[in-house]
Amino acid sequence: MKPLALTMGDPAGIGGELTLRAWQALHREGPCFVSLDDPRRLAALDGDVPIRTVASADAASAAFAEALPVLPISLPAAPKPGHPDAANATAVIRSIECAAALCLSGKASGMVTNPINKAALYSAGFAYPGHTEFLAALTGATGRQIMMLASPELRVVPVTVHASLRNSIAMLTTEAIVAAVQTTAEALRREFAIARPRLAVAGLNPHAGEQGALGNEESTIIGPAIAVLRECGIDVSGPWPPDTMFTTRARSGYDAAICMYHDQALIPLKTLDMDRGVNVTLGLPIVRTSPDHGTAYDIAGKGVADPASLIAAIQLAAELGKRRANA
Amino acid sequence: MKPLALTMGDPAGIGGELTLRAWQALHREGPCFVSLDDPRRLAALDGDVPIRTVASADAASAAFAEALPVLPISLPAAPKPGHPDAANATAVIRSIECAAALCLSGKASGMVTNPINKAALYSAGFAYPGHTEFLAALTGATGRQIMMLASPELRVVPVTVHASLRNSIAMLTTEAIVAAVQTTAEALRREFAIARPRLAVAGLNPHAGEQGALGNEESTIIGPAIAVLRECGIDVSGPWPPDTMFTTRARSGYDAAICMYHDQALIPLKTLDMDRGVNVTLGLPIVRTSPDHGTAYDIAGKGVADPASLIAAIQLAAELGKRRANA
Repeated sequence: MKPLALTMGDPAGIGGELTLRAWQALHREGPCFVSLDDPRRLAALDGDVPIRTVASADAASAAFAEALPVLPISLPAAPKPGHPDAANATAVIRSIECAAALCLSGKASGMVTNPINKAALYSAGFAYPGHTEFLAALTGATGRQIMMLASPELRVVPVTVHASLRNSIAMLTTEAIVAAVQTTAEALRREFAIARPRLAVAGLNPHAGEQGALGNEESTIIGPAIAVLRECGIDVSGPWPPDTMFTTRARSGYDAAICMYHDQALIPLKTLDMDRGVNVTLGLPIVRTSPDHGTAYDIAGKGVADPASLIAAIQLAAELGKRRANA
Repeated sequence: MKPLALTMGDPAGIGGELTLRAWQALHREGPCFVSLDDPRRLAALDGDVPIRTVASADAASAAFAEALPVLPISLPAAPKPGHPDAANATAVIRSIECAAALCLSGKASGMVTNPINKAALYSAGFAYPGHTEFLAALTGATGRQIMMLASPELRVVPVTVHASLRNSIAMLTTEAIVAAVQTTAEALRREFAIARPRLAVAGLNPHAGEQGALGNEESTIIGPAIAVLRECGIDVSGPWPPDTMFTTRARSGYDAAICMYHDQALIPLKTLDMDRGVNVTLGLPIVRTSPDHGTAYDIAGKGVADPASLIAAIQLAAELGKRRANA
């Protein structure tokens, strides 16, 4: 099993300290990973964690049990926790590029990205809305990428993401729902080893519209998508009343919930398990996961950030990478 | 302590069988209640539950340990589970009127309503959108009534309720948020015995709008409401990112969450505790709770309906009634 490649993320955020904590938690039993970061700045965060600069991903595997292996990427400016610095933007981007290249060449089994601050990267010419679009370009991905949030309790896929609630409703289309379900079903089969995935599609409105009394998107947009997907032989149900579809009983009836907007997906996921949610990008030719939090400037450098989500992201990436390798 | 008055609800729904189950669960330890229903139809549902026809609420208290006390209201048509019958509409309405009258006269300490089917009542001249508006009229309530959903884990108050998601956004006003918070704060103080209630107000958009990047209702509608409420001396916080405000840690920071739309309130409540959610109407001069489910025609008469929410509604009504009595 090849190691995972772990990006630096914004060096003014909590990524570095979480990487150290993740190594402490995982160095005995794995999964093995290599950090693409500046070894000096990691050492400055916590002198007690042994760090080994390595020259290749293979060397990282050999070192992992004894020290955090780092493929070095120098930061021109010493990072100040909580204060992003455009001078480091190129290094942050390079960390992502290197991780993707290691995955594409088969030297890494997947990549895990620490959180970035997009605003700080734009000054360095970064021209993507976020990690996902950048990775799609780097890996020559065709088709649509989809964000899945996975925790031990629940997998959710929001059809619309970074938009106001009002715009999310306006952006909702039958085509987008069909694409989200197809990409999710394919990923669950191939990477999550679920032979016949069951997808549950949420309604948009209270009580899924109550036969039109509380909205009609269920009959005009969501229902037609479900009909098309059934024609394709996908095991899909809905539109379900959103408020009752995340109970323990309801969750046992599906492998992933397709949600119409950000908070319909994220409220149940984080309410059930705040700390272990993992972001998985579906529809890339490589494995990529990330923790379900941001740079957290307010607590960066204080040693209080919780590594649970990064650790879960590493564990899930390893699992998905193993399945790809065996496929 | 006076008994609670329990309405019949739609006799074609699950109300009757739940009432019998609730008596079985509570007859030893209370709280004591009296059913306003047709004793023949209750006996027909389950001959094993002892039923006693009583002439007053006081007689009900004396009988409760040995039999389900019923203040009789005759149904003209024998109810068929799952098949609502307009011939019984007047009796259903009378059950609600009697319960409210018992509360107003002090003979009952509160009322608990079984679910009705409004469509079946309209034929009998029922002219209200639901229980709440009818009870406001019956009790001469002034001001605004608010629905709170309460479970052992969480209390939520949706500012907009029975509308499509699109219309809920359009209906959101500063004034409605201010009124919801004020009514909730007052009820938490008076009836829930929370000396200084802490209210958390949700944002509408993902990440509470991210400083305007994902919507502006936080700055144009919700923020101004919070400012007004603080001026009034209410302990109110927000607008909070909706996805992280229902975690265990976040919930410990407030006594009730004020939500912008139905599913923002109901998804976390039902995800955390599907079976024990109770609907409480705030802003009435009497105590009124109800179970958090409908008539459930699909399972009515089969003996499989879960009485947990009705039992929780009875227990909460008793608690609130006791506080009113002692106030």
